Amino acid sequence: MSGTGGGPSPPPAPAAGRGEPHLLRRINSAAVLRALRDADSARSLTDLARATGLSRPTVEGVLEGLTRAGLVAGTGQAGAAGPDGERRAGRPARRFRFRAEAGRLLGVETGARRVSVVLADLRGRRLGALSREVATGAAAEERLARVAAVAGELLEECGVAAASLRAVGVGTPGVVDGDGTVRLCAALPGWTGLALGERLRAVFGCPVRVENDANAAVLGERWAGAAVGADDVVMVLAGLSPGAGSLIGGRLHRGYGGAAGEIGALHLLGRQAAPERLLSVSGEPLDPLDEQAVAAVLAAAREGERGASAAVARFVERVVHDVAALVLALDPELVVIGGWAAGLDGVVAPVARELERYCLRAPRVVASALGDAAVATGALRLALDRVEAELFAVAD
Amino acid sequence: MSGTGGGPSPPPAPAAGRGEPHLLRRINSAAVLRALRDADSARSLTDLARATGLSRPTVEGVLEGLTRAGLVAGTGQAGAAGPDGERRAGRPARRFRFRAEAGRLLGVETGARRVSVVLADLRGRRLGALSREVATGAAAEERLARVAAVAGELLEECGVAAASLRAVGVGTPGVVDGDGTVRLCAALPGWTGLALGERLRAVFGCPVRVENDANAAVLGERWAGAAVGADDVVMVLAGLSPGAGSLIGGRLHRGYGGAAGEIGALHLLGRQAAPERLLSVSGEPLDPLDEQAVAAVLAAAREGERGASAAVARFVERVVHDVAALVLALDPELVVIGGWAAGLDGVVAPVARELERYCLRAPRVVASALGDAAVATGALRLALDRVEAELFAVAD
Repeated sequence: MSGTGGGPSPPPAPAAGRGEPHLLRRINSAAVLRALRDADSARSLTDLARATGLSRPTVEGVLEGLTRAGLVAGTGQAGAAGPDGERRAGRPARRFRFRAEAGRLLGVETGARRVSVVLADLRGRRLGALSREVATGAAAEERLARVAAVAGELLEECGVAAASLRAVGVGTPGVVDGDGTVRLCAALPGWTGLALGERLRAVFGCPVRVENDANAAVLGERWAGAAVGADDVVMVLAGLSPGAGSLIGGRLHRGYGGAAGEIGALHLLGRQAAPERLLSVSGEPLDPLDEQAVAAVLAAAREGERGASAAVARFVERVVHDVAALVLALDPELVVIGGWAAGLDGVVAPVARELERYCLRAPRVVASALGDAAVATGALRLALDRVEAELFAVAD
Repeated sequence: MSGTGGGPSPPPAPAAGRGEPHLLRRINSAAVLRALRDADSARSLTDLARATGLSRPTVEGVLEGLTRAGLVAGTGQAGAAGPDGERRAGRPARRFRFRAEAGRLLGVETGARRVSVVLADLRGRRLGALSREVATGAAAEERLARVAAVAGELLEECGVAAASLRAVGVGTPGVVDGDGTVRLCAALPGWTGLALGERLRAVFGCPVRVENDANAAVLGERWAGAAVGADDVVMVLAGLSPGAGSLIGGRLHRGYGGAAGEIGALHLLGRQAAPERLLSVSGEPLDPLDEQAVAAVLAAAREGERGASAAVARFVERVVHDVAALVLALDPELVVIGGWAAGLDGVVAPVARELERYCLRAPRVVASALGDAAVATGALRLALDRVEAELFAVAD
């Protein structure tokens, strides 16, 4: 499954032929690279030797290999000049830095109504983001082409060559297999059965990891959003086709068949109405993908229109029930409400209040901090995980 | 938290002073003990050396220590006589066996209506079991005394001294803390806040592990019931106060606060009636602990009485919804239906059928194989885990 990416050659191949066994060389190389990656500024040989506990000659050998692999750069005479610009006495220490620009990462959300992409460097630092609409009825090929076009546009905007992509993460609605094939997806036409990972590997020429959108979202919130530091998290993408992603002990809970959190059918229990009917003022169900119709109801409710307010109240109650069922089953530490419904006035407070009623131990409830960017950010985190595994993993 | 059990002294202290480091001695000792425990019959020194990869002198030293600790017995001249009873030529090989009788284990269910205990040897082989009623309104002290009395009765019946107990596992309704304190339990009077583990350690004089009853039940089914070989399992104890226990990747999922699977409030979602009302023919809710009233409705339904049949159908629908909510959240491989409701005609088939409707990927659904014994069996498994960790763990 490992792709053939552009950019510098993947695993650092440092200091060959020094008599160290291969595994030990990898361990040493990963330690030095990590020390450089985690540093805010360039580090000297002495500093690196102290930080890693390795000898100076070992660090030197490792740096040689990492430099050859394009992952490290020496900063010439840096450190030679003091803060006041004057030259200091003695031989200036050479310094080294992690070349975060040695490769790029892409996080992609393939939503029903939009394609969102976010670009980052090898540290995961965001270089740019772009979101473009896509027709809800778009066929799979059209949607794939849209992904390629939006990504291409962002790369060009940021002046980044496509060949520098090292890994791509993707968040998509539906149940996703380990190999990146969409096993089941009702929301996107032609998506079920699509070898999404394989297709996008061909587009981007690098490894691609595909994950369910709610699963990606919870990874995003934990990395850089409302769930930083939390290990047991349920995130709900609330909307007309709700989904949930869960972390248990800090790890994604996918379920036996990858369908954990596919709660779209919860409203069927007890013969309750579907969300698209609950949110309707006329009684006719809304089109789940018709954002404008939804927005109209929300706007009317905000203006105090009684029918619309009642519709929103019904819908929020539905969100409460979905979340409560997940919480009773999983007992998370934290619930994050995302999706467009997270923006509803007062969806977080009612959820928190009702959970206090239903649960023996109610979790904290917060709104998504990443909002619309949650899925693409989580997808980016998947890409970063992929690259870090390559750069820093030493086992096998 | 480790108690002072009776019986032979716990961790094998073999072959001291032979110059081997302590950890290595423990590893060797655990390997030999495991080889003996897993064998169907006594094994010779040669056989043990081959099975463990250790030298004969090392095995001999280890066996000496294990024998002194009471965990191993030499079988004198065993192997000296052939199957035909005739003496064989040459010096007979001495053989050794694991003394499973060196200690006893107890599994306890402290239910609302009954106390059940099961007794086993150090291999987990069942020596006897006993179940006695207890008043649903019994105060905590009375219930604790009942546990001690029922356990004492079983030990006496089996001719086992209380001092030989090495570990006790307990399954109880409610949310249980890691130290064996019941944090919350609505079903048993005075149970909330009870330091159940500590109290029973005082009674039994050995380590006690306490777990939620549904959690114990799923461990029991996986060890010796309907879930053998399955790693992702949801078990529902269906009844008027339903609860669920889940295995994820082979490990118990307790939740962040130990309340995972406490689904008693699920019926509140969507303002559905409580199970005790659903199962009522008169419309007045049944007493959830009144087994006879429940039995009367079930009997009437079996005889085709229309009101009772409708009540049972409503109740089964409730079970279906509870299970479906858990399955949508967790996506298990297997669902096991336990509790008295598992015995209802056709509860398994409707659950399986409805899950096919609701779930993107429906799990297998089976009835509990252990029935009434599921919780006590799982509690026994907890006790066995405790002892095995002591006997075989070598880390630290």
